[in-house]
Amino acid sequence: MTMTMGLIVNHLTKGISLPHTTVDLLDPGSVDTEVQGIVTAFSASQYVIEQAISLGANFIITHEGIFYSHQRMHECLLHDPVFSQKSRLIADAGIGIYRFHDTIHRYQPDGVMVGLLQALGWHNYMVKQQPTAAILTIPAMKVKEIAEYIKAKLHIRYVRVAGEVSMPCERVGISVGYRGGGDLAIPLFLNENVDVVIAGEGPEWETPEYVKDAVYQGHSRALIMLGHAESEAPGMKYLADVLSAQFPMLPVHFIEDHPVFQIL
Amino acid sequence: MTMTMGLIVNHLTKGISLPHTTVDLLDPGSVDTEVQGIVTAFSASQYVIEQAISLGANFIITHEGIFYSHQRMHECLLHDPVFSQKSRLIADAGIGIYRFHDTIHRYQPDGVMVGLLQALGWHNYMVKQQPTAAILTIPAMKVKEIAEYIKAKLHIRYVRVAGEVSMPCERVGISVGYRGGGDLAIPLFLNENVDVVIAGEGPEWETPEYVKDAVYQGHSRALIMLGHAESEAPGMKYLADVLSAQFPMLPVHFIEDHPVFQIL
Repeated sequence: MTMTMGLIVNHLTKGISLPHTTVDLLDPGSVDTEVQGIVTAFSASQYVIEQAISLGANFIITHEGIFYSHQRMHECLLHDPVFSQKSRLIADAGIGIYRFHDTIHRYQPDGVMVGLLQALGWHNYMVKQQPTAAILTIPAMKVKEIAEYIKAKLHIRYVRVAGEVSMPCERVGISVGYRGGGDLAIPLFLNENVDVVIAGEGPEWETPEYVKDAVYQGHSRALIMLGHAESEAPGMKYLADVLSAQFPMLPVHFIEDHPVFQIL
Repeated sequence: MTMTMGLIVNHLTKGISLPHTTVDLLDPGSVDTEVQGIVTAFSASQYVIEQAISLGANFIITHEGIFYSHQRMHECLLHDPVFSQKSRLIADAGIGIYRFHDTIHRYQPDGVMVGLLQALGWHNYMVKQQPTAAILTIPAMKVKEIAEYIKAKLHIRYVRVAGEVSMPCERVGISVGYRGGGDLAIPLFLNENVDVVIAGEGPEWETPEYVKDAVYQGHSRALIMLGHAESEAPGMKYLADVLSAQFPMLPVHFIEDHPVFQIL
């Protein structure tokens, strides 16, 4: 059987209902193109695309999009040299890029969360699974110990921490990606009684300000922001492992990208 | 003449047209209440409110809101002890809180930007003023030197930097608050030919990913994210200086709050 991009996409999306506003899309790419190799990554960055080309992979599956936006492309890019150069590279290479965002988040359990928990070695600690968060009971650790543990496990250089760093924690709420905002993260403290929320990214004036106030009032609360890519890349690495097992005849690679920020 | 909260609000908003969706509001508070003293701050945090009370100031003017949200309050807070405790403190103290966000951003030039440029000692370097950014020509400095300069001037412990840290820069684009997103920040590179954008906060998958791609392609680009509060607090400090000069009979204090995050 010829392994086409359409076949892989159908396999990934089987049984998942998506809203018609979904951002998941094969673009560029044709469902009939034969897949020579697959690369998975957090985003279809210039680096990831060049790596895919040098690996001979013609199909890239990424969680975030190609052009620095969740939904519609920023109009300002149309005359931008970075956009032109990247577009030309993609067109010349004839690769297909599949944005795999909404579907994997709708897996039961969320595939990106599964990847993160596996990378942390915490998958056996989950006591509750919500649509946008996992609740864990872990062996007691202080917030600063959790931060060091995460940095070592995920090979990341820093995390941003709000609240009590010396507080011992057992009950942990984890949200990947941009789910660190107040609507999703704050209720975990009251409704799920978590000591600490670990999230990817969120507005600074929402959950971090709430945690700051809570601690100033004498409550025990903490928040660890991993970074958006840092929280979701493990899910795309996990996807590469799964695809590799399901399609053993296809070369499948996860590309670890460079962090967007350094701390100065 | 009695200095009422209404008089101060009228003074601050004179000549400024606001959309009917504005978040600027005196709540709690009455226009007829006599002002005993004014506190300005980035946000009406528990710490800021307690400081205002201990200073005998009954009128707080803040840029961001009280309850961790830009517009409507998160419903999840209604049964939250942090919300209850803060609400009770505000009610018991009988203070007025004026959210001063949209108006100060509509000053010509933007009052928050003026405060930041003054704090950086860069107000004489502005060559162009846009509604959401200032364009500066500064004496040439490397990105990492700019980062160190900013940290020293604003007394902040870290900045997040994307792109080329050793690149010399002369043309700088500055945006305060949550104006670091792709729509506002990316065009500064092409249309304004800036070497570096300095912003408060923005989604990590937008401008930072663009800068990463640009540098990987061989373009010279950099981005310095100051933090949301770090970029806007100087504007509220500047406001305190202005109000103090305009109302010499009133005690006016700027409260420097603690940073929400520490880096681990």
